[in-house]
Amino acid sequence: MARQLHLNLFIHARGHHEAAWRHPAASPLALTDIRYYSDLAQRAEAGLFDSIFLADQLALGPDVAHAPRMWLEPITVLAALSGATSRIGLIATCSTTYTEPYNLARQYASLDHMSRGRVGWNIVTSWLATAAANYGDAGQLSHADRYARAEEYMQVVTGLWDSWADDAVVDDRASGLYAHADRIRRIDHAGPHYKVAGPLNMPRGPQGRPVFVQAGSSETGKRFAARHAEAVFTAQMEKATARDFYAELKALAAAEGRDPDQVLILPGLSPVIAATEAEAERLSRELNDLSDPEVGRSRLSGRFGGHDFSHLPLDRPLSPEDFPDPATVEAARSRTEVIIGLVRREKPTLRQLLGYLAGARGHYVTTGTPERIADLIEDWFTDGAADGFNVMPPVLPSMLDVFVEQVVPLLQKRGLFRTAYEANTLRGHYGLSRPPGF
Amino acid sequence: MARQLHLNLFIHARGHHEAAWRHPAASPLALTDIRYYSDLAQRAEAGLFDSIFLADQLALGPDVAHAPRMWLEPITVLAALSGATSRIGLIATCSTTYTEPYNLARQYASLDHMSRGRVGWNIVTSWLATAAANYGDAGQLSHADRYARAEEYMQVVTGLWDSWADDAVVDDRASGLYAHADRIRRIDHAGPHYKVAGPLNMPRGPQGRPVFVQAGSSETGKRFAARHAEAVFTAQMEKATARDFYAELKALAAAEGRDPDQVLILPGLSPVIAATEAEAERLSRELNDLSDPEVGRSRLSGRFGGHDFSHLPLDRPLSPEDFPDPATVEAARSRTEVIIGLVRREKPTLRQLLGYLAGARGHYVTTGTPERIADLIEDWFTDGAADGFNVMPPVLPSMLDVFVEQVVPLLQKRGLFRTAYEANTLRGHYGLSRPPGF
Repeated sequence: MARQLHLNLFIHARGHHEAAWRHPAASPLALTDIRYYSDLAQRAEAGLFDSIFLADQLALGPDVAHAPRMWLEPITVLAALSGATSRIGLIATCSTTYTEPYNLARQYASLDHMSRGRVGWNIVTSWLATAAANYGDAGQLSHADRYARAEEYMQVVTGLWDSWADDAVVDDRASGLYAHADRIRRIDHAGPHYKVAGPLNMPRGPQGRPVFVQAGSSETGKRFAARHAEAVFTAQMEKATARDFYAELKALAAAEGRDPDQVLILPGLSPVIAATEAEAERLSRELNDLSDPEVGRSRLSGRFGGHDFSHLPLDRPLSPEDFPDPATVEAARSRTEVIIGLVRREKPTLRQLLGYLAGARGHYVTTGTPERIADLIEDWFTDGAADGFNVMPPVLPSMLDVFVEQVVPLLQKRGLFRTAYEANTLRGHYGLSRPPGF
Repeated sequence: MARQLHLNLFIHARGHHEAAWRHPAASPLALTDIRYYSDLAQRAEAGLFDSIFLADQLALGPDVAHAPRMWLEPITVLAALSGATSRIGLIATCSTTYTEPYNLARQYASLDHMSRGRVGWNIVTSWLATAAANYGDAGQLSHADRYARAEEYMQVVTGLWDSWADDAVVDDRASGLYAHADRIRRIDHAGPHYKVAGPLNMPRGPQGRPVFVQAGSSETGKRFAARHAEAVFTAQMEKATARDFYAELKALAAAEGRDPDQVLILPGLSPVIAATEAEAERLSRELNDLSDPEVGRSRLSGRFGGHDFSHLPLDRPLSPEDFPDPATVEAARSRTEVIIGLVRREKPTLRQLLGYLAGARGHYVTTGTPERIADLIEDWFTDGAADGFNVMPPVLPSMLDVFVEQVVPLLQKRGLFRTAYEANTLRGHYGLSRPPGF
């Protein structure tokens, strides 16, 4: 069979557009209501998506007055979704910086059992100062330190997930033998940052380990992804840079001795879709009109480590000199560089830049008919820029529905996307191998 | 209305008897299958129980070859059960010793939203050396230290749960005001053990805070329960000691300035029930015959800090001199003292003692007809020994079913137990007040 496309639904607030929560087509449910999330997961499952994904942030943002997020905690939401769905993969973010590795390993193994092998872990390190202040405030770690700890963290949790052999549990009522004790082993990890004896207090999950997802795109982040990630979410504003990123990451994975096909690259895509181009642009303008540029300005400041942009006029073209050097601010390097690249290329006004960022926070935003969106997906997919997409509907659920009802059938007609689920696990959907046990 | 009894289902392995997992009437499902737990929660809900409860242990026990436990992680299980049930309360254990308070506060708040106000937290401190070895192994904390940290932990998590006013979220699409920022406050906690800025990154849950459950019965544990607990699980082998405990804890709560009616005392009860006394005793013997006394001997050794009991013959009466002084071993003091008290009173053989402990690990085990069990419950309930019971069926689901089908109707007929749910939250079922917001 021809190479198949992978689709992930990224669930964020009432949609990825900053003003989505106010839009009349956005869900009427409260963002603390689990039915909002289970309804979206079920719609994505009806559309045969590979997976859904929840991001996370370990502190309340400064803009709560005007910017609702997903409020529920991702691991508990995944657990609830495991019962509300039956086939779709379930990916949640959890930070290596502020979670005990034994707790993280246990909760993801539990999710893998409950979902019968459908769980993925988006591995992040935490850099927000406001998050550090919620966890002892021992000072933020440097970028390099965070990744050094994350490397060791991966050894620990991988060891824990592999601490029970797949055949350890016998559960033989007649003989009274429940498990082979010699098929369960301690890990006795003692490194510079972590000391964990093991074994995990739970049998190995159906997938062996959760699928490892990563989104770092700094140099350190890319090396980390090349070593560990099985799916990579990435923000790419144009096909040319997406192709470069794709080629680089596959090469880095190969250099680590891995099969590049076992590392899927999924750029973000936030499409406003309508029957005509004009209607799609009207919808897009309608969303932008709901946005407040002053809210956007304060968010931009947050992205650049608190840098003060208050003096910048909204309507004169920007230049890179209007921004601090990304190397000097404590922030998500991948995003600050994307923003400055855009400013260098297109010289937008601040208002235009904020409008663009309001769309999907630096991910690729576009408008068009279902046909044009399917063309774009096919083009990136066949031209070495993507193995699939991290779909970020601007408004939820309405713009997910349009995608499922009108774009997915075109992709299926072109032979690019499944017409029925062929697997039962997330590894199965993504075509990833199962890590062997001991 | 007359004072009403409260019933909690304690879910443990395939039942509380050590050999339950081998019994033909025990569930055929794997202990990693969430359907096992959701099925039990649904049966308890059909029986109008107030709540279900999951214990926890942060390390694999030494007896995995012969002793399966509940393997899934309690918080993720509760999240799944929140979707599989609609009225029953859901209580999970989580340790203050090894979980970041921000993470715990977030996950329980998330569970409270997802379950629409049905969550409870069983507060424990961890003393197992094998658990410490999974969390940095910085050395075990002393009993007093663990409780001192737990006190401060309660301040932090309570502050986080109260950090959003109940009316903070407006979600007004027309004006663009999502939340009143001045109805959300930092906690800026900076104590000897924890430094947490807050606020929580989530609106306040339907119950304000989860229901606080506790089971400590050392002197420090009882004082902690008197200050914080809204429901207390306790192991009591006879009504006389249960009455003393009940009176003492209510008095301690009153001395803390609390309403004693807002602290429910729920002793454990593990009943083997059958149509005749003879049949109940036959079932009980059948379970004991499935137990291996050598497994029990090794568990007894574990309870007494590794003390060697290998020289003791199985069939001669024991005396307290056969045991080490509880003050000299690192163990759960409450249980070692209960065991030596039993030996002093009844002079059982080692085989008889192990048979008793196999029943429910030191909780009250009994056999009888539905009528006799209902009499016992009524007697303890009306005679100052209990506000209800922590029901620990020896075999699951069969011995839960007998309780629901044959004991519950008797309790209802006597006017002691609800005939329909009258509330929608765990606080509602237990008759507990909701902590006011700021």
